[in-house]
Amino acid sequence: MGGLLFPTKTPLRALRTAVTGPVAGLEGRVMSGRIKVGIVGGTGYTGVELLRLLAQHPAVDLVTITSRREAGTRVDAMFPSLRGPIGLSFVEPDRAPLASCDLVFFATPHGVAMNQARALTSAGVRIIDLAADFRLQNASEYERWYKQAHACPELLREAVYGLPEVHRSALKRARIVGNPGCYPTTIQLGLLPLIEGARRLVDTRALIADAKSGVSGAGRKEELPYLFSEASDNFRAYAVNGHRHIPETQEQLELMAGHREIGLTFIPHLVPMVRGMLTTLHVRIQPEARATDFQKLFEERFSGEPFVDVMPRGSEPDTRSVRASNLARIAVHRPGDGDQLVVIVVIDNLVKGASGQAVQCMNLMFGRPETEGLMHVPVVP
Amino acid sequence: MGGLLFPTKTPLRALRTAVTGPVAGLEGRVMSGRIKVGIVGGTGYTGVELLRLLAQHPAVDLVTITSRREAGTRVDAMFPSLRGPIGLSFVEPDRAPLASCDLVFFATPHGVAMNQARALTSAGVRIIDLAADFRLQNASEYERWYKQAHACPELLREAVYGLPEVHRSALKRARIVGNPGCYPTTIQLGLLPLIEGARRLVDTRALIADAKSGVSGAGRKEELPYLFSEASDNFRAYAVNGHRHIPETQEQLELMAGHREIGLTFIPHLVPMVRGMLTTLHVRIQPEARATDFQKLFEERFSGEPFVDVMPRGSEPDTRSVRASNLARIAVHRPGDGDQLVVIVVIDNLVKGASGQAVQCMNLMFGRPETEGLMHVPVVP
Amino acid sequence: MGGLLFPTKTPLRALRTAVTGPVAGLEGRVMSGRIKVGIVGGTGYTGVELLRLLAQHPAVDLVTITSRREAGTRVDAMFPSLRGPIGLSFVEPDRAPLASCDLVFFATPHGVAMNQARALTSAGVRIIDLAADFRLQNASEYERWYKQAHACPELLREAVYGLPEVHRSALKRARIVGNPGCYPTTIQLGLLPLIEGARRLVDTRALIADAKSGVSGAGRKEELPYLFSEASDNFRAYAVNGHRHIPETQEQLELMAGHREIGLTFIPHLVPMVRGMLTTLHVRIQPEARATDFQKLFEERFSGEPFVDVMPRGSEPDTRSVRASNLARIAVHRPGDGDQLVVIVVIDNLVKGASGQAVQCMNLMFGRPETEGLMHVPVVP
Amino acid sequence: MGGLLFPTKTPLRALRTAVTGPVAGLEGRVMSGRIKVGIVGGTGYTGVELLRLLAQHPAVDLVTITSRREAGTRVDAMFPSLRGPIGLSFVEPDRAPLASCDLVFFATPHGVAMNQARALTSAGVRIIDLAADFRLQNASEYERWYKQAHACPELLREAVYGLPEVHRSALKRARIVGNPGCYPTTIQLGLLPLIEGARRLVDTRALIADAKSGVSGAGRKEELPYLFSEASDNFRAYAVNGHRHIPETQEQLELMAGHREIGLTFIPHLVPMVRGMLTTLHVRIQPEARATDFQKLFEERFSGEPFVDVMPRGSEPDTRSVRASNLARIAVHRPGDGDQLVVIVVIDNLVKGASGQAVQCMNLMFGRPETEGLMHVPVVP
Repeated sequence: MGGLLFPTKTPLRALRTAVTGPVAGLEGRVMSGRIKVGIVGGTGYTGVELLRLLAQHPAVDLVTITSRREAGTRVDAMFPSLRGPIGLSFVEPDRAPLASCDLVFFATPHGVAMNQARALTSAGVRIIDLAADFRLQNASEYERWYKQAHACPELLREAVYGLPEVHRSALKRARIVGNPGCYPTTIQLGLLPLIEGARRLVDTRALIADAKSGVSGAGRKEELPYLFSEASDNFRAYAVNGHRHIPETQEQLELMAGHREIGLTFIPHLVPMVRGMLTTLHVRIQPEARATDFQKLFEERFSGEPFVDVMPRGSEPDTRSVRASNLARIAVHRPGDGDQLVVIVVIDNLVKGASGQAVQCMNLMFGRPETEGLMHVPVVP
Repeated sequence: MGGLLFPTKTPLRALRTAVTGPVAGLEGRVMSGRIKVGIVGGTGYTGVELLRLLAQHPAVDLVTITSRREAGTRVDAMFPSLRGPIGLSFVEPDRAPLASCDLVFFATPHGVAMNQARALTSAGVRIIDLAADFRLQNASEYERWYKQAHACPELLREAVYGLPEVHRSALKRARIVGNPGCYPTTIQLGLLPLIEGARRLVDTRALIADAKSGVSGAGRKEELPYLFSEASDNFRAYAVNGHRHIPETQEQLELMAGHREIGLTFIPHLVPMVRGMLTTLHVRIQPEARATDFQKLFEERFSGEPFVDVMPRGSEPDTRSVRASNLARIAVHRPGDGDQLVVIVVIDNLVKGASGQAVQCMNLMFGRPETEGLMHVPVVP
Repeated sequence: MGGLLFPTKTPLRALRTAVTGPVAGLEGRVMSGRIKVGIVGGTGYTGVELLRLLAQHPAVDLVTITSRREAGTRVDAMFPSLRGPIGLSFVEPDRAPLASCDLVFFATPHGVAMNQARALTSAGVRIIDLAADFRLQNASEYERWYKQAHACPELLREAVYGLPEVHRSALKRARIVGNPGCYPTTIQLGLLPLIEGARRLVDTRALIADAKSGVSGAGRKEELPYLFSEASDNFRAYAVNGHRHIPETQEQLELMAGHREIGLTFIPHLVPMVRGMLTTLHVRIQPEARATDFQKLFEERFSGEPFVDVMPRGSEPDTRSVRASNLARIAVHRPGDGDQLVVIVVIDNLVKGASGQAVQCMNLMFGRPETEGLMHVPVVP
Repeated sequence: MGGLLFPTKTPLRALRTAVTGPVAGLEGRVMSGRIKVGIVGGTGYTGVELLRLLAQHPAVDLVTITSRREAGTRVDAMFPSLRGPIGLSFVEPDRAPLASCDLVFFATPHGVAMNQARALTSAGVRIIDLAADFRLQNASEYERWYKQAHACPELLREAVYGLPEVHRSALKRARIVGNPGCYPTTIQLGLLPLIEGARRLVDTRALIADAKSGVSGAGRKEELPYLFSEASDNFRAYAVNGHRHIPETQEQLELMAGHREIGLTFIPHLVPMVRGMLTTLHVRIQPEARATDFQKLFEERFSGEPFVDVMPRGSEPDTRSVRASNLARIAVHRPGDGDQLVVIVVIDNLVKGASGQAVQCMNLMFGRPETEGLMHVPVVP
């Protein structure tokens, strides 16, 4: 499917070769059918969510999990929800048998994965970074937004952006995956059918993403704005003048749009809920595209996608309809049949917006069924 | 009245200086300096909020409160928070001494006030309707959105739209006030400096109001979507294809803009919090207006307004910063100094979005200091 | 294990015969290894939770689901979270093929199951009622608390109380199961080691259960107290002078305690959260039992239980540590080594407190592994 | 002071009539009728709440507010809710004109007030400490619970415990007030009528306080358990084996009870709401007191109290019914007319549980009407 997506002007290097299974030379590690997994970090929310998913994944052996600060602590002492399924303790990073893993997830802050990537990949270990180290293709953009030089630009060039709906083929043979941010996932899925390819359906210079996230998106950090007494019964916009998720979104949208000019206004808001993200995309329809059936466009584009659900016409999906699941649900509206299109995308920011997407990438990388271990029914209410 | 408001595109500020006291012929009722007030309805959230405000207003005598269903029930049995300040019981509508009041508030569903307005105004009683009966100037628009003919179109023509920041002069001499909806209050305050008068600052045909409201905005109604277990830890858009607040907003924006064409996309969302509303306005700056200092524009426009606080550059106001107060706070952003303006407006939907604004109108109508009884400091956290 | 529990004075008729597999005459239906399941009701929260669990149960074929009011509606139109896993529509009760099911769950209000129980059991169908019709052994108690005569007292006598930790053996051969209430589950699990058998460890005449429940426990009912704007950012006790969960708890505790006198004060509270229940049990240690190691007592009693987790000494379990899972976690405290024991029990009220427990009972009734389809890792955060 | 309070088991009511105005020698400072107030600390939740209340108090001039860390920052930059009413900036503690104030509030962590108390009282300044430095009468208890020696035990002996319902007379002449903790306020108010004086109404050796607090009670501290994503949609007990509010409660209850033995089990819980506290007191009625009308007992005891509202029989008060007000509401239940009494007390932990009570004490200390500046109607919903 991916190969058909960009018939002309296919710019994403990852898409150049259509691969359907694991790359030659990599299969050896998965012959047993099981994947030996290590986690670096894992004391944050994406970490505990990754543990929840991997603990229930039928083909994964969780070998080790590292944390300098928590070395020696049992994982289930920190997260009692994992009493039973996870028997490991956190290990000093230097003592963890990462090099003998098939795959290492980095559930760390930015700047950690890139410093260990060379050694691990040299040892034949594949990497999925849930932070930003391998999301951008442009090392100077990385430096601009993260205030540090990139430690391994050559690996950055090789890395695949972990959005399977766009980069499925490349993911199947990837050694290094930059797992997308939560906001970028919603924005890209909601705009993909509108801007990919050569068609001129919408004004790509005036895209508006009015996005709303649950507080877990801020991570498990002891910071004032994320205290219960600050964030509860309250609502606000933040990072109005620039959020770190902008550069990867911009870059990927440009790739999608065949390097047409992209103008994106992105305003994130903080919702007093734990999980969930809803992005409202306001897009101007091009005069020549007024006759388009946008509902049908979305349905067709995502018809084969296991984790993207285009809702029936008139739907107003809520975030809980995907809670604790790897699904994205999308609704397409055109109020008053006018020139403004309103696309609503909901995901669970910790699953399709982070750890679930990472597991989806893992499945692709290791030739497993893409949905394996990810078919949890959303938890409602 | 509305038709007279902008005879020659008079900048609205000019309209504020006309009248400083109660209109001749009306003063008699307020000579004592006190206002005899009745409330029709009052078992909903705008009702209990009105009671909270009036109980603490130094010039108000609350005379009677009606409810057919709750007749005989003590108000403080229904709302224990009012034990002490409010000693009244609900009274059968027909038995309530409404005609001897100076002012009657209608905190009822749509369709009630218009059926009692003739009798009351004939008896010399003034009216503030917190529902929609006197918000629209166009009776056919009322019929279209509320599915019933308007009961007194001649009073509708006389009614003043209760947004003091625009209609202060007219409110001072009003007999009937249609108190604005909560969403329209935020949208109008956020767009007012941009579209009033003859200047062409922004593209009025592509205004986007991405609005977010606390659940109390839905009223005290036993409806499924507003159950705790439905609305909590959840977020969604609703009424995407048409909300009843659109016609009054459209009408008022057209008046403000001197009858230029208004194109408004309005998408409301439900936030899991009790009180509070934040509207994010996305507006396209006209090419000829790129040099405008929009921060200064807002500061000057609202410099004399007691209840509109233009925040310092770069601010990201949260809803709790106005909780339980009559304030609107506004922040003006221009991300990346580009062509999109982002205006953020926060109010407490039950105060400036409903009952507080009604009391503000009352103060104007009865020649009281506009801020009397409304200077509550917001409750944080 | 159950057989050892009540060495003398074994009063529970269900326990009289130790059965380890399905009863002779019933096995035929499960020879295939799969269970044909029907659901009566299922538009409430226990219903949607049951659907979530059954959709992921490897041995269940969901055949039909009934609702008079929603007949013809697709289940996933009402609960979009089920789009995909559940393809059924609600069916008129009279048209549903309930009689050809192996098992029918009643996720209905009280009074429904008992009116259909005779016909279904006669047709060889087994029944689990999630409401109260088969919880009490005493028909007159039922009448007293539910204001209606019991429709089939002879089946009531046969019914087994669905708490596997107490009635496992009986459940394996049960035709009719009364699934416990959520509060009673917590109280019984927390008191079980203290009051069962002949030992006199605590004063059974002065048991205090100070219980706290999330709002979903009130069901999916359009009632004022459960509105978001009523229940959010708020906390209160309710039913202080008598809750319907008292009689079943009292009855079961008396059975456990070998008919010693039970004095129970039960005060439920409403917590502004969707799921979760925490019960704090305050129990007075008998003078002669002061030397008891209560931690050890609990650990031993529940050592073989797959869904009861006795936490390490000093633990303070939170409700989210069991969210969306079938686990109960219990902590035992003795503040200041004094005479008061404080036992804290947490469950997810919709899982171990309702639908999960019902599935656990189903597994026992049909000879399936007790944990099948119930090993979901709790969702945190 | 405490030792003098109950020299001969005088019923507390008798103590209230002693002094009606400011003590001789102290009046000088308040001749003007206005109170010059300084605040030390004030960046936490009790601080911002104190600012909210003082800003609306008609007799207070807020002179200075200190914070070492925030020196130079405008108060309203930290708390935008105070834009307008509070124009001050935080001042370096050493530069603040505290010595020329009539009264200094300490809204600081434990250990600060006691180090400044000697200097300030020597300068004729009175002190109200919202932390624990002057709550305990026993310096060794202070040392035991706060792990530091008390800096001024002689002032500790002089300090008055700031619960007006018990110590009104003493407060009128106090130089130093230790403002009660929030939990102790609820426990004392709920037990006061039952244990004061010589009567033997309840078993004082087995008092149970099952208490529930909103998260703001934990303060504005960047600590993991108080993050939104940890505390929201969650419920737990904490400090089960010993909370710092125990010693002051124990000490005061012993005083109330005329030095009878007090056995108190106190279990606090964290409720996912910002403000509010509800304590459920479980008390055993003495056999000889079974005929007591406990409702009447409470009504009479609190009949003259402006801030204690004994609810009608059968009431189940919720925390929001006192939100943002200085009220305590109390309901008295005796389920099944048995031997267990259940007393429910609700307060706003930041008002009657902290800053409002401090202002009430201030009013008493300075001869102002006790309710001045404290008559805010609770904010509902």
